[in-house]
Amino acid sequence: MPQPAIAFSTRPTSVGVARLGELQTPHGVIDTPQFMPVGTQASVKSQTPADLRAAGAQVILGNTYHLSLRPGAERIERLGGLHRFMAWDGPILTDSGGFQVFSLAHLREVDEDGVTFASHIDGTPHRLTPETAVAIQEQLGSDIAMAFDQLVDPTLPPVTVADAMERTHRWAERSLAAHTRSDQALFGIVQGGTDPELRRRSAAAIAELPFDGIAIGGLSVGESKAEMGATLQVVADALANDPRPRYLMGVGSPLDFFLAVERGVDLFDCVLPTRVARTGQLWTSAGRLNIRNSAFQDDPGPVDPRCACETCQTFSRAYLAHLFRAEELLGYRLATLHNLTYTLDLMRGIRAALADGSFASLRDAVQARYGDAESTTKPPITDR
Amino acid sequence: MPQPAIAFSTRPTSVGVARLGELQTPHGVIDTPQFMPVGTQASVKSQTPADLRAAGAQVILGNTYHLSLRPGAERIERLGGLHRFMAWDGPILTDSGGFQVFSLAHLREVDEDGVTFASHIDGTPHRLTPETAVAIQEQLGSDIAMAFDQLVDPTLPPVTVADAMERTHRWAERSLAAHTRSDQALFGIVQGGTDPELRRRSAAAIAELPFDGIAIGGLSVGESKAEMGATLQVVADALANDPRPRYLMGVGSPLDFFLAVERGVDLFDCVLPTRVARTGQLWTSAGRLNIRNSAFQDDPGPVDPRCACETCQTFSRAYLAHLFRAEELLGYRLATLHNLTYTLDLMRGIRAALADGSFASLRDAVQARYGDAESTTKPPITDR
Repeated sequence: MPQPAIAFSTRPTSVGVARLGELQTPHGVIDTPQFMPVGTQASVKSQTPADLRAAGAQVILGNTYHLSLRPGAERIERLGGLHRFMAWDGPILTDSGGFQVFSLAHLREVDEDGVTFASHIDGTPHRLTPETAVAIQEQLGSDIAMAFDQLVDPTLPPVTVADAMERTHRWAERSLAAHTRSDQALFGIVQGGTDPELRRRSAAAIAELPFDGIAIGGLSVGESKAEMGATLQVVADALANDPRPRYLMGVGSPLDFFLAVERGVDLFDCVLPTRVARTGQLWTSAGRLNIRNSAFQDDPGPVDPRCACETCQTFSRAYLAHLFRAEELLGYRLATLHNLTYTLDLMRGIRAALADGSFASLRDAVQARYGDAESTTKPPITDR
Repeated sequence: MPQPAIAFSTRPTSVGVARLGELQTPHGVIDTPQFMPVGTQASVKSQTPADLRAAGAQVILGNTYHLSLRPGAERIERLGGLHRFMAWDGPILTDSGGFQVFSLAHLREVDEDGVTFASHIDGTPHRLTPETAVAIQEQLGSDIAMAFDQLVDPTLPPVTVADAMERTHRWAERSLAAHTRSDQALFGIVQGGTDPELRRRSAAAIAELPFDGIAIGGLSVGESKAEMGATLQVVADALANDPRPRYLMGVGSPLDFFLAVERGVDLFDCVLPTRVARTGQLWTSAGRLNIRNSAFQDDPGPVDPRCACETCQTFSRAYLAHLFRAEELLGYRLATLHNLTYTLDLMRGIRAALADGSFASLRDAVQARYGDAESTTKPPITDR
């Protein structure tokens, strides 16, 4: 047996099935629960790797769909792989392109073998199958690759959702069979929409396969918080005692973290913190603030007096309000750095709270500041 | 007599009337000859003050026209002045708005008292006079303020150019009379187009006034290199033995530095290095390169192997080529940091070459790499 690419050690906590973990990867250790900033096109928008480290990032995500279209996986491989290409020497997780094909590409046609689609960049035809999605991720050289899955709108008839789920299971087996890199982990993806029975079946089917970790896909696509929580609970129950890391895909609002961590989730990714930053929405210890509000034009205080990021330590709300009004590039950069720092600080706070038993009071405090309205409903995808 | 806001000490060199200097300002010392990155809207586009320091910047420029329209000079004053507002604790020079009013604003109407114009942002009417231009700069709190001048197209009939020049001289006296801050220097501006006699008269008239320094305006607006050189020579001759710092406004291509330094220029500013960076034109020790060229997509080397900036030390040409093709914000940021570093390194090299007698060979080497074509012809102004 070859050595597995990753090793995951956890200890239980007093909070639901939440656990504290250490995920060892070929490029370093990830403390879990953990959030992964999204570097869609081999760049977390406006940030350097040094910025990401300063914000507290331990692992980032790259997008197979985007990178295979531009600059191309062969090119990245020739240039030494994604780590070297983007100069990030920490762990990288790549998705399989499944989500983007179903949310971003045009002229999509699904058959049993894979998906044919037109590039959103130039309309050129492309095809992804479980085998090519894995091969691309091996070329990219990420620490953790994802199986290729089929997404569907969870509000479609149950038979359609079930069909896509069953195909996802067959594609999961093909993804495993195609995977050859011993220095890369491969995670399977649980689908099944918001139907509890389908989710239970999908979790069981994926858990039976020899994946290195298990992802939960197809959430945060329009369902309610209650539906998300119920679905995560079903999956948590189905995976009880499974020691592998669990990754909730595309979810990343402050409140969702608590909902999911209690239900055993270890990893998150989402474009939300970076995307909303570029619109001027800043996450702070006192809740959200929209820096475009005119009141901030004369506010000499920092965005968040409790934040240690370069933005909060150096600049005033008034300055950021000016940068956004003047459409200065620096505004997007400073806001992004802050929101990433907030998100990664919150995740560190969650780990500390799991360790010292204060999870419920931290959750209540964040809930009081962020309310029920905050949603991670997925935006139209490109993080552009 | 109040203490002057700045002190300038120079030593002569073996190169024309070039001198090496130290300009002491309320916010620190500037080694001359020196280049000032342009922070039009209280931000050198995409860069933090820490980036500017890392690139070697000692002094930056802010634009009175832009800042008075947005966020407003009163607001910046209330927030503690421009240094604090943008978190740059080094010297700042502000222009008077004269150039922008004549190149950027709409519905411009000049009378003896000043200029009425419509904001390029929202069309609202505004007015600048020598008195208000100085008052705004006092509110901004720059280390060096500029007198308000009238620009005209140098290809207009000589009588028109002469009229604007004479008015600039009258406005210079009014600017001086209006100036009250003892911790801020005030520079006059020589105009007169490319007519040697007008330039001679203008230099003499401005030099007669008790300014702290003398700027040369109205160049790099379409004239040939030969015309620029001849005009600078006329001014240099007229200012011979004048000990005050000389600032050539809006000029900043590699070859222009040599042309002007030989003719006694101490300070430069220009949007060129930052503006062309955002189009993918990178300045290197081997000459210009356009990172959008397809050949760079597979080039694993740094932009400039002789450059110590974060861009060259961290990332490949291939990565920058990708960022520009993908229109990633990080590309503009990394290219800007590099071009500023190149420009400031070149200026440091010019100072070293003045000190050790190698100015001519440095000039020839840069000339060989940059050719005659390089031009600082002014772009349409906003640095956007």
